[in-house]
Amino acid sequence: MPAPRIALAQIDTCVGDVDANAAAVLAWARRAADEGADLVVFPEMTVTGYPIEDLALRASFRRGAEAALQRTAAELEAAGLGELAVLVGTVGERTLAPTGDQDAPQGARRPTNQAVLLQHGQVQARYDKHHLPNYGVFDEFRIFTPGDDLCVVDVRGRRVGVVVCEDIWQDGGPVSQMDEAEVELLVVLNGSPYEEGKGHVRVELATRRAGEVRAPVAYVNLVGGQDDLVFDGGSFVVGVDGTVLASAPQFVEHLLLWDLPERGAPPQPGALAEPLSADEEVYRAIVLGLADYVRKNGFRSVLLGLSGGIDSALTATIAADAVGGQNVVGVSMPSAYSSEHSKDDAADLAKRLGADYRVQPIGPIVEAFRGELEIEGVTEENLQARVRGVLLMALSNREGHLVIAPGNKSELATGYATIYDAGSIGGFAPLKDVDKSRVWALARWRNNAALDGVFGPDELPPIPESSITKPPSAELRPGQLDQDSLPPYALLDEVLDAYVENAEGRAELLARGFDPAVVDKVLALVDRAEWKRRQYPLGPKVTALAFGRDRRLPVTTRWREP
Amino acid sequence: MPAPRIALAQIDTCVGDVDANAAAVLAWARRAADEGADLVVFPEMTVTGYPIEDLALRASFRRGAEAALQRTAAELEAAGLGELAVLVGTVGERTLAPTGDQDAPQGARRPTNQAVLLQHGQVQARYDKHHLPNYGVFDEFRIFTPGDDLCVVDVRGRRVGVVVCEDIWQDGGPVSQMDEAEVELLVVLNGSPYEEGKGHVRVELATRRAGEVRAPVAYVNLVGGQDDLVFDGGSFVVGVDGTVLASAPQFVEHLLLWDLPERGAPPQPGALAEPLSADEEVYRAIVLGLADYVRKNGFRSVLLGLSGGIDSALTATIAADAVGGQNVVGVSMPSAYSSEHSKDDAADLAKRLGADYRVQPIGPIVEAFRGELEIEGVTEENLQARVRGVLLMALSNREGHLVIAPGNKSELATGYATIYDAGSIGGFAPLKDVDKSRVWALARWRNNAALDGVFGPDELPPIPESSITKPPSAELRPGQLDQDSLPPYALLDEVLDAYVENAEGRAELLARGFDPAVVDKVLALVDRAEWKRRQYPLGPKVTALAFGRDRRLPVTTRWREP
Repeated sequence: MPAPRIALAQIDTCVGDVDANAAAVLAWARRAADEGADLVVFPEMTVTGYPIEDLALRASFRRGAEAALQRTAAELEAAGLGELAVLVGTVGERTLAPTGDQDAPQGARRPTNQAVLLQHGQVQARYDKHHLPNYGVFDEFRIFTPGDDLCVVDVRGRRVGVVVCEDIWQDGGPVSQMDEAEVELLVVLNGSPYEEGKGHVRVELATRRAGEVRAPVAYVNLVGGQDDLVFDGGSFVVGVDGTVLASAPQFVEHLLLWDLPERGAPPQPGALAEPLSADEEVYRAIVLGLADYVRKNGFRSVLLGLSGGIDSALTATIAADAVGGQNVVGVSMPSAYSSEHSKDDAADLAKRLGADYRVQPIGPIVEAFRGELEIEGVTEENLQARVRGVLLMALSNREGHLVIAPGNKSELATGYATIYDAGSIGGFAPLKDVDKSRVWALARWRNNAALDGVFGPDELPPIPESSITKPPSAELRPGQLDQDSLPPYALLDEVLDAYVENAEGRAELLARGFDPAVVDKVLALVDRAEWKRRQYPLGPKVTALAFGRDRRLPVTTRWREP
Repeated sequence: MPAPRIALAQIDTCVGDVDANAAAVLAWARRAADEGADLVVFPEMTVTGYPIEDLALRASFRRGAEAALQRTAAELEAAGLGELAVLVGTVGERTLAPTGDQDAPQGARRPTNQAVLLQHGQVQARYDKHHLPNYGVFDEFRIFTPGDDLCVVDVRGRRVGVVVCEDIWQDGGPVSQMDEAEVELLVVLNGSPYEEGKGHVRVELATRRAGEVRAPVAYVNLVGGQDDLVFDGGSFVVGVDGTVLASAPQFVEHLLLWDLPERGAPPQPGALAEPLSADEEVYRAIVLGLADYVRKNGFRSVLLGLSGGIDSALTATIAADAVGGQNVVGVSMPSAYSSEHSKDDAADLAKRLGADYRVQPIGPIVEAFRGELEIEGVTEENLQARVRGVLLMALSNREGHLVIAPGNKSELATGYATIYDAGSIGGFAPLKDVDKSRVWALARWRNNAALDGVFGPDELPPIPESSITKPPSAELRPGQLDQDSLPPYALLDEVLDAYVENAEGRAELLARGFDPAVVDKVLALVDRAEWKRRQYPLGPKVTALAFGRDRRLPVTTRWREP
């Protein structure tokens, strides 16, 4: 028997759309078979999409996923693919261990995070993930019950160990118990969200597990956007010595092939993907996140306010890369304080992107409010900003575009933005996790990429140079500049990163050498911004009882009751 | 030695305000000593407030809580209370078990949910909660590391077992291991959120544990509002046979005293609180939730739109009960479609409540929008509604009131509301978890309570009868009625409860006997509402990367870097 060929099917599933996901399994399995594969491995929770959050607790959803799984097994067989070993992920079930949880009485069936081997028209094996991450963005311990069995399957006479994602992140996990099973390959089904620089961590970790089982590790990762998360793909095969033997590109669907060597023979390298630069990685992550949010939620176009500033310019460019410039609607909503160059820059940008460009002055509406209400100062500035928000909502209402919000992380964290304005309303905020320093870096990278032909031949830089170089301003009063109210962005972003992201306290910030006056200013701004969000936060998330909080459902899902 | 007197200090702590919480411990300990107590027991996580969510992961926060704890031990001694045994909750620390979590490397100190015995100016014992709930509204497994030791302390020669909240919800938990310790009393520190009818469940559970240790159980619960949660107090002592020996009222701070019997003597009953009716329980939960949100966030007054309808009438009445009628600002914002009786009802309500009443027509502003934008139908209806939202934000901006949102659960679930209108903007939505049928029931209960003198002598019913009896309407076009678009509310609420709250699928709903046409209509409405929230949800919760989701901080907190 020749050594088996392994296919890593790095696909973009959609949470809840079990039929489309099952159809993708069939299509990619056929492709893998056409390429001569004996085993095709899909990402974590292929059939259900990932992460499904509290959908897992809905029995009708679990029934729907199981039906799609069984149908897929039969369809693979019917399509002449019965010999192919197909490893997919889905939601499984186990009988509950004793607990006081009133929502899940003892004896109830509880969901698991499951890998399933389909072959010869049947489910041949099931494996329930042991380690359920519950930190950072993960809530798996909340929704799943852990498994405790090992899974080793036979592929053309070779022993292949199967685990799921977090199982390899834990020392002493199931891989450490696989020693006696003498596996010749370990496959890992993953839904590992993108973080900057995480690729190296994954390879190091997989190498450690390869050492434990003394066999290569095939790491298959999900690709695609799901609400706040972007899965970057970047699947790979790594040898016991840490050599990457094959790797797939990030941010695209891909079928990566690799041949398991004959017994005793050294492993041979397969295709290797070119790594991306740091800025390109982040840029492509955001484009994919937006593109999938639009597509998976059934939108065709996006709408945003164009101020001529850098945030809306970069956001519109990202949108054009995600859905096509012709599907981007940019609205300039000038007030008395908008400079001519701002209006010119907005128009110029829209033209470069091929976007639908409109001008909608806000003066008469602001005047009508002023006629009804005595307002001045910040109240008046906020009102102007909110009139723009209402205009965007009306246009979206009338025409069905998804509103996107260009607010960046630095301004949202410090409250240097109006709640419900054109920067903060909308269904998706592409730059919400990108600080201002990075906004500039990404804009520069994107313009250079145009010159380098990265996005196609003969593209001109999409972002007007003056949007990048001019000092940022909200233009809500004459001569207003961001830097009159905030520390320099480079410094601000460094302090924010330490305080918000790394959860460092004031003592740690001072020990790092930051100026105490700057630290106190930034902490006061962040605390004040938090406080403002209590007065009228981004929607009334807060209520007297527990509505919404005990059911944390995914935003993007196509799950419908069958 | 006479048998010890036990004090259950049912207090209202504030998340993050470690100094104020520590001061409350001192004050209530003094009260307990004045009443002759030998042991005073406080609720779960007294010093830090509860639940602290991801604040637990901030090392500077843990240091601040520990400093406040140590100071409290010293201050108790200095105040001559050194003999008193004081059991408080706080955040503790343990060295991390091995894990792949990059945010918490091995060897790092990790938070625990801790009970601490203070006596003679010292920490005498520490106990880390074993069972960390991670279902429904709880995220404790996410943030805490479990303990594995038992805790039995000596109070005047008697053996007292100590556990925390979820520890008694799990069969086979620490209480089951206390058998050999021969405890004579088991005390439980709790932060158990209010749910309808939960009181009985708590007593049954405590009785089961009393049977295991063959001793009474003293159950001390937190009281107060924290964002979406309301802790109802209702502390009690229960005997081995299930007899409630003493009980505290719900929704107020209280010191409940109970004397442990002499060895071998039968337990004697103490004070018993009168139980509340179902509607009164819910009403008081909402009032306390709002009152604490206002107070703990440093607001003095609330602002809402008064339409003359039942939702805003009930919300304004709840607000008046929470913060005083003189601190409620009600704004009538009539349009061309507002009926005379609606305006009259709004004015009448405000007068009965003693609220600050204002009229702010929206016609000229809507006209200004119409002059700029061609809109009609639902787009035009939504625009009217959002102009009201912008007006409320401007008033809040100018005068500092907290905006509250009167939207109810039925309309939010079905999308029968405009996103960002006067019903859905704001920092707190008192009725967000109350369906329309219950809105009417609570309004009727409140009016009857006035006649019964529950809220003081000679009070007149606050809610105009016609606001309760007239058919509900959004009044965004002529003759519009809710029931033209929705099934009858009684039926709608039943289906919503099964579909949303109980996570039942379509098959289960039909098996219950619901009309398929109604079921399909309601499911379509809910799905459509979910979809609309993707277009411009209640604020852009959704982003390309993970901002905000991996740091789920509490909204209400007074924690500041020291």
